[in-house]
Amino acid sequence: MFNAIVSAGTLGTALDSVSVLVEECKIHLNDDGIAIRAVDPANVGMVDLTLSEAAFESYEADGGVIGVNLSRLQDIAGMASSDDLVHLELDEETRKLHISIDGLEYTLALIDPDSIRQEPDIPDLDLPATIVLEGRDIDRAVTAADMVSDHIALGVNEDDEQFYVDAEGDTDDVHFELDRDDLIDLTAGPAHSLYSLDYLKDMNKAIPSNAEVTLDLGEEFPVKFHFDIAEAEGSVTFMLAPRIQSD
Amino acid sequence: MFNAIVSAGTLGTALDSVSVLVEECKIHLNDDGIAIRAVDPANVGMVDLTLSEAAFESYEADGGVIGVNLSRLQDIAGMASSDDLVHLELDEETRKLHISIDGLEYTLALIDPDSIRQEPDIPDLDLPATIVLEGRDIDRAVTAADMVSDHIALGVNEDDEQFYVDAEGDTDDVHFELDRDDLIDLTAGPAHSLYSLDYLKDMNKAIPSNAEVTLDLGEEFPVKFHFDIAEAEGSVTFMLAPRIQSD
Amino acid sequence: MFNAIVSAGTLGTALDSVSVLVEECKIHLNDDGIAIRAVDPANVGMVDLTLSEAAFESYEADGGVIGVNLSRLQDIAGMASSDDLVHLELDEETRKLHISIDGLEYTLALIDPDSIRQEPDIPDLDLPATIVLEGRDIDRAVTAADMVSDHIALGVNEDDEQFYVDAEGDTDDVHFELDRDDLIDLTAGPAHSLYSLDYLKDMNKAIPSNAEVTLDLGEEFPVKFHFDIAEAEGSVTFMLAPRIQSD
Repeated sequence: MFNAIVSAGTLGTALDSVSVLVEECKIHLNDDGIAIRAVDPANVGMVDLTLSEAAFESYEADGGVIGVNLSRLQDIAGMASSDDLVHLELDEETRKLHISIDGLEYTLALIDPDSIRQEPDIPDLDLPATIVLEGRDIDRAVTAADMVSDHIALGVNEDDEQFYVDAEGDTDDVHFELDRDDLIDLTAGPAHSLYSLDYLKDMNKAIPSNAEVTLDLGEEFPVKFHFDIAEAEGSVTFMLAPRIQSD
Repeated sequence: MFNAIVSAGTLGTALDSVSVLVEECKIHLNDDGIAIRAVDPANVGMVDLTLSEAAFESYEADGGVIGVNLSRLQDIAGMASSDDLVHLELDEETRKLHISIDGLEYTLALIDPDSIRQEPDIPDLDLPATIVLEGRDIDRAVTAADMVSDHIALGVNEDDEQFYVDAEGDTDDVHFELDRDDLIDLTAGPAHSLYSLDYLKDMNKAIPSNAEVTLDLGEEFPVKFHFDIAEAEGSVTFMLAPRIQSD
Repeated sequence: MFNAIVSAGTLGTALDSVSVLVEECKIHLNDDGIAIRAVDPANVGMVDLTLSEAAFESYEADGGVIGVNLSRLQDIAGMASSDDLVHLELDEETRKLHISIDGLEYTLALIDPDSIRQEPDIPDLDLPATIVLEGRDIDRAVTAADMVSDHIALGVNEDDEQFYVDAEGDTDDVHFELDRDDLIDLTAGPAHSLYSLDYLKDMNKAIPSNAEVTLDLGEEFPVKFHFDIAEAEGSVTFMLAPRIQSD
């Protein structure tokens, strides 16, 4: 059983954060909210999303799992204005999702969850450095790095208490550093890892520029990006595996 | 003789409603305003446009006919701001149209009207159902239907006094219904017909979202869309032939 | 030695006026400001730009010359908001330009100035007619002419004291004339020359619509467009060679 009402804006934000990595996903319809975990086909980027019951106008569910095509669902949500309410109701018999927006009813065929790539176990890494910064700073770093290279180093300078971003191209380089004063918070620790810009660019698209983003970072370890959505009634965690650095 | 001044916005709106169906058309320069009738090459969609003398700042004509390339005329009108005045003057000798916009003079070669597809006779159908609704509701229905199918059913549920739209795709369906309360007006009657979405999408582009649109509908009959333009000093009627329903 | 701070908006405007003609250019780092002269590969269009010391927030230079890739520099300036300050510093040893924007450091590899096309000598023509008009009028003329032709005539009607623009296409023509009243200033004189629209369209892109532009014009002579940038602390001159008129 699943019967819920949510604003088109909240639904869209949640879907966007998953669709940057995968085309299809399983949605867990838990009794306290929905949850999605997904990993891209190359096993490099993962997303873990929760949207609690409180992010919905009304919410009833009892623990089922559905499989959806994300771009289709985004198109439907995209027809509504951000404040419009979207009514979602699962028809258990036909395994279709009925989506109503102000008189418009869309019947969405679901995908067999068993046919969707298995959900990842997102490891509980104990990373030594934690940086809290604004989404817009991630955007600046990624945009600049993309002008010179296809990979990017993220790290912490423990002595100067700085978070830094480095991208080295064939002729040009980009360096971006944020002091403790430029950051919302910093727990310095040994951290320097290289990542694929293609993935970071995709994840960056889903990070609101005014979001407070927490980065967990280590030495040649995955990076985790964590931020809240839906007025903190939901949260997104991205995890990105490092590239092996050839020195 | 033809010598008229009209706002670029009014001229553009009028041309847009014809150009969604044809590239070239005949314009009748009647003494009480201009009139255009056109049918697309496949004889499926027709348009009947009138723009009365009162829609112009000044207007003089004596019943001639000119042939024009619509996109060219749209480009010229598009160079002006919506409130700018466009002066149109026919040179009978050279068969060219002189178009002046604030110091800029464009001399447009006309097309021999005899070389343009014959104008359709738009039949005076006595259709049993009439629905009056806002342009934005047509837009919502067409946009949603386009996500699942390439055709769309329009109909009236006489018992519930509802206007409905149905689109059935291979996996997903769209259903949209508007009660008497959601409509500006409804004359219920037996009505259900299937139409090509390609044509409806084109016509929809020319329907202002705040226009009051009158639909005349029957059972496996053409649909007529009628709306006013130029502050009711002009009007547009689209007629679209039904697709044969294979049951 | 070169160490300067300038707003991203001013830097962008200056670069745009050169990049419409060439991909790479030499920048003279004079002690009173920067200067760029460039000619397109076909030797048809030239640009002469100066941006004085006063257009910068701070400026130190001692007469060197650097070679730059313009689109790369534009991309970097484009990452900043118009009011953001861009810090430029030349590393004499590595021959790289360090560009800092609010914590972001970009290291730009320079181009050997000797590998860049030689700078043109922009001739000091004594042209008989001078027209001063708004950038937006040039834009209107160029946009309209482009609808019918690939070349454009600029001229002065001495008797009527008019500046005119003519474009003749295969079927359609454009004529644009501005009286003394429509112009900011006019020095009438014998002037009529034909120019390539491709070049004029490019130059037009770099002319702000509210700029006061001075045109120097003659009979089958190059045209010069002159306008100020950076609140008159900089100036741009375009020169465009005429097309030979075949009568």
